[in-house]
Amino acid sequence: MSNVDQQLADTKETIVSEVPNDISITDVTYEGPELVIYTRDPKSFAENGDLVRRLASKLRKRITVRPDTDVLSPPREARDEVHSVIPEEASVTDLDFHEDTGEVVIEAEKPGMVIGRHGSTLREITQKVGWTPEVVRTPPIESSTVSNVRNFLKQERDDRRDILERVGRQIHREEMSDDEWVRITTLGCCREVGRASFILSTPETRVLIDAGDKPGAEDEYPYLQVPEALGVGASSIDAVVLTHAHLDHSALIPLLFKYGYDGPIYTTEPTRDLMGLLTLDYLDVAAKEGRAPPYDSEMVREAIKHTIPIEYGDVTDISPDIKLTMHNAGHILGSAISHFHIGDGLYNVAFSGDIHYDDTRLFNGAVNEFPRVETLVLESTYGGRNDYQTDQADSEQRLKEIIRETYERDGSVLIPAFAVGRSQELMLVLEEAMREGDIPEMPVHLDGMMWEATAIHTTYPEYLRDDLRDRIFHDDENPFLADQFNHIDGGEEERQEVTDGEPAIVLSTSGMVTGGPIMSWLEHFGSDPDSTLTFVGYQAQGTLGRRIQNGWDEIPMNNGNGRGRGNTLSLEMNVETVDGFSGHADRQGLENFVKTMNPRPEKVLCVHGDESSVQDLSSALYHEYNMRTFAPKNLETFRFV
Amino acid sequence: MSNVDQQLADTKETIVSEVPNDISITDVTYEGPELVIYTRDPKSFAENGDLVRRLASKLRKRITVRPDTDVLSPPREARDEVHSVIPEEASVTDLDFHEDTGEVVIEAEKPGMVIGRHGSTLREITQKVGWTPEVVRTPPIESSTVSNVRNFLKQERDDRRDILERVGRQIHREEMSDDEWVRITTLGCCREVGRASFILSTPETRVLIDAGDKPGAEDEYPYLQVPEALGVGASSIDAVVLTHAHLDHSALIPLLFKYGYDGPIYTTEPTRDLMGLLTLDYLDVAAKEGRAPPYDSEMVREAIKHTIPIEYGDVTDISPDIKLTMHNAGHILGSAISHFHIGDGLYNVAFSGDIHYDDTRLFNGAVNEFPRVETLVLESTYGGRNDYQTDQADSEQRLKEIIRETYERDGSVLIPAFAVGRSQELMLVLEEAMREGDIPEMPVHLDGMMWEATAIHTTYPEYLRDDLRDRIFHDDENPFLADQFNHIDGGEEERQEVTDGEPAIVLSTSGMVTGGPIMSWLEHFGSDPDSTLTFVGYQAQGTLGRRIQNGWDEIPMNNGNGRGRGNTLSLEMNVETVDGFSGHADRQGLENFVKTMNPRPEKVLCVHGDESSVQDLSSALYHEYNMRTFAPKNLETFRFV
Ligand SMILES: [Zn+2]
Ligand SMILES: [Zn+2]
Ligand SMILES: [Zn+2]
Ligand SMILES: [Zn+2]
Ligand SMILES: [Zn+2]
Repeated sequence: MSNVDQQLADTKETIVSEVPNDISITDVTYEGPELVIYTRDPKSFAENGDLVRRLASKLRKRITVRPDTDVLSPPREARDEVHSVIPEEASVTDLDFHEDTGEVVIEAEKPGMVIGRHGSTLREITQKVGWTPEVVRTPPIESSTVSNVRNFLKQERDDRRDILERVGRQIHREEMSDDEWVRITTLGCCREVGRASFILSTPETRVLIDAGDKPGAEDEYPYLQVPEALGVGASSIDAVVLTHAHLDHSALIPLLFKYGYDGPIYTTEPTRDLMGLLTLDYLDVAAKEGRAPPYDSEMVREAIKHTIPIEYGDVTDISPDIKLTMHNAGHILGSAISHFHIGDGLYNVAFSGDIHYDDTRLFNGAVNEFPRVETLVLESTYGGRNDYQTDQADSEQRLKEIIRETYERDGSVLIPAFAVGRSQELMLVLEEAMREGDIPEMPVHLDGMMWEATAIHTTYPEYLRDDLRDRIFHDDENPFLADQFNHIDGGEEERQEVTDGEPAIVLSTSGMVTGGPIMSWLEHFGSDPDSTLTFVGYQAQGTLGRRIQNGWDEIPMNNGNGRGRGNTLSLEMNVETVDGFSGHADRQGLENFVKTMNPRPEKVLCVHGDESSVQDLSSALYHEYNMRTFAPKNLETFRFV
Repeated sequence: MSNVDQQLADTKETIVSEVPNDISITDVTYEGPELVIYTRDPKSFAENGDLVRRLASKLRKRITVRPDTDVLSPPREARDEVHSVIPEEASVTDLDFHEDTGEVVIEAEKPGMVIGRHGSTLREITQKVGWTPEVVRTPPIESSTVSNVRNFLKQERDDRRDILERVGRQIHREEMSDDEWVRITTLGCCREVGRASFILSTPETRVLIDAGDKPGAEDEYPYLQVPEALGVGASSIDAVVLTHAHLDHSALIPLLFKYGYDGPIYTTEPTRDLMGLLTLDYLDVAAKEGRAPPYDSEMVREAIKHTIPIEYGDVTDISPDIKLTMHNAGHILGSAISHFHIGDGLYNVAFSGDIHYDDTRLFNGAVNEFPRVETLVLESTYGGRNDYQTDQADSEQRLKEIIRETYERDGSVLIPAFAVGRSQELMLVLEEAMREGDIPEMPVHLDGMMWEATAIHTTYPEYLRDDLRDRIFHDDENPFLADQFNHIDGGEEERQEVTDGEPAIVLSTSGMVTGGPIMSWLEHFGSDPDSTLTFVGYQAQGTLGRRIQNGWDEIPMNNGNGRGRGNTLSLEMNVETVDGFSGHADRQGLENFVKTMNPRPEKVLCVHGDESSVQDLSSALYHEYNMRTFAPKNLETFRFV
């Protein structure tokens, strides 16, 4: 009997001795980090409201209870019974019965009403039909990404169960090593912005955190091929953790599967969907620009299939000696600070990913309360000594000023933006400003996946700021459904119409003007001195956005949409930069994040910033808070224990 | 045609165009780092005295010329002719003809006379017989190690040629990577003394430097199994470089071959032989102490077979982007500071190995002149703020005092010492002291390989201090041949005789009292209050030697030679420590080594010292010379470019 089988047999014995005699336990298995208990008496299990919680705390595992399939009522009958239990107002849009696991997936517009107070409705469903209910939200705005992901996962259920079982056995394998150490190897985003990637390793476990591209230097990948990363084979990695979906963190995650990785990706559910959206677009852009994409869309599907979603605050075993907890990072939808608890109290490391410390319209500010963190790996995008941003309130005033002035000149406002994050923040600003009469009513065109990204936001309101979440739950208050928002889905023709029409606001990707429809908008509006190009986000070194900010006005148009190839464009429109909308904490925010941590970490690695930013931040944190701080280079390894 | 074959074809063309028309070039191959030119006209080649040097400088390669085998005179004739050319006084002891390569190995007591002025005699041999002469010294004291190694290499010639050809093709392969970086990974000897081991890596090349054991903690190996070391497979290592033969640097070199390593070991010839001696003893000791040896003696032979000896000062290509030069380290016979020139002027790193900066009786002080060194990895054994040693002259006085006092009490002096290095230094001190009447004439017993180690010293006088070398060349002045030196080769019986006999001096391994015959000597003399145990070398933490220095007088004798197992011994003999004989530079010596470097390195990694020693030295070098200094932990990686 293998070590894991022995463990499961022991666990089953414990469970049998803990549950009332009338509940029969037929099987106990691992599915990813969860312990799954099969029972012939799912109803009695459900009646003992506290039983699962007691078992979870006793076994120190996350627990799922499933009915043995032969005690289930047939789907046809069950369907009616489920409908009868759930209140009409929940607006169920889909019921999907999985006979292999005894689960019924309920898609509803109001998931809360399916769940009931403290899960009472769910328990009632199990009591009635035996099936285990799982609830997902019907996207308030139709999202092809969300429905594609859900359909794909439905179709791949068998494969996915195999993966989860394998991963579960890996996680719960016996510890092998007597050694004790904790190390971080930097594979990218050190003294640079882009290609975020790290290895966290112990004698037992190797975790890869992020694998992004570098905007403006598309051929500079993280150093995945060195021995300490994938050099010993992709299967030597136990787990991949993705902090958020921005391409500078996620672009090369699917590549891992091409390299033979076959393990789990831990991330939040919205990050999974956004990663799908953004990496598929990444492949598109590469193809359009004539670069060979490093992987194909099949690998994106592999990544989605291998994702084990985890929720903020859940403590998850990801290997015999590491527990992962993700916390809101305030940066984009689903973005997470990833906290690793290593050994039994041996060491704690947190990777900030990208963070925003203060609340924004979209998100609550980043969490910085952890029971313990000895080492913090901290983004430093705005860590430079002068990187203090304007307050967002002032920035909003300035943006509205620019919009009013441009409107009065009969010009349009063109805003390059990431599809995900700042676009939705700006939508909220613009919606409010028009509603309150601060700026004239005019169309706001969303080009290049922003619409789709917005739809994903509305699918996961739990990840948005509290008051915004509540508004989204009411269709008539959902700001993203406001009339002035228009999805550019008619391509060049529609863009030409917009150009020829009345003054408008255009939000378009890419956010750093490195390709995408913004190139086309620049051609349309670039020579119009009445219009204004307005930067609202960080422009990395080497990107066209940064160059235009620095005064370039002759723009090579060789990676546009086929027209103007090899030509240059004289930029005659106004160029403005409004900071303060960043999804990143500014210098003050970064310091506040660290300052208010309790206890403060002993060590901080400053990463994800230009050379001077990481140096400035590292030196400031050292001098002000007397922590040991570092500004690592790529390809270095730090040992902590 | 492979890339290397193409390169060789091009090289052959160049050579043909450079040599006079009457010299035919039949083949050009690589043997390890050397380019071997085969010619049907070895005599004409030899006549053109300057030709080889010109080709070497044009091709930037080390060059060996070999005769095509069908132009050689038959060995029987050649033997007489060779004898007729070499002067009688050279005392040739062996002539060995290798028909596969056209080499004749000449073993002589006076190799210099076989070589002649600027190699004139060698050239004369080639002109007469066509064979290429190679000269080795007949050991003045018979050494079974040296003769075993030589016989073994003779017997393995075919294998060895295959290895050299393979290595040669590896070294001269085309560079594959566009990346540029230089990294050092620490696998051992950081914040500790023992288990020296490093990886030096570039995108092209991975070099392992040293792989030693840890005295007093025999199960603590260097971290060879991590991905950045052998984790990707032992064959991912391009080259192994061994700084010197002490076990804390060499013990696990043979283990690499058990792990599948099949590449070259670069080191000096004496280090090769001493490594053979010491690692075989390491296996013996492990067996005697009931530990499972990590490899068997076959692996020691593999290590010897894969060694490519290099001489101090020779610049050797060891990979497409790295050149190695070894320099005298002044520490033990053959010890070398290993200097790596990376890329074409990209970066230079020197690993000090263990060094002694001042001249000693045995060795010239460590070389610290290098064209460039940006990073120095520096031993710090005596780097602590108080680690200033007595001058050796004063130490010698003190030692002689102890000997005289002990002698007057009718006691004996027991000195634990490494077989290699300090023992020979002490022999020189004692020989002179007795010759000059400073201490009474009495037997000096050498136990545990010291005799053999001494024989190896006399085989390689070129590696000794100039004036000592000259004395060794004259039998009547060779201090190691003095009458009072006695080789303990009669085991326990002889030890008992010594104990029962007149006062004597005993030098015995192991140097840190971690096993070996010193344990037996302690049993013999331990309870004799008239005798004196005298430490003259560094005692690492965790060793019995260090404990005795700290005042322990109840000594567990459970790893002795079978007797007294499990007993404790009450130590009643005097215990003295005389520093100043160390093979290591003291704090002043380390500082002087760095201070007088020109130019000084930008960065220094302080290693091979207790935690406080490396911290002290690192901080002192930073404050005094304003260099960036580090006290790495094991398992860290530093990037330099
Ligand atoms: Zn981001
Ligand atoms: Zn980022
Ligand atoms: Zn970012
Ligand atoms: Zn040494
Ligand atoms: Zn050493």
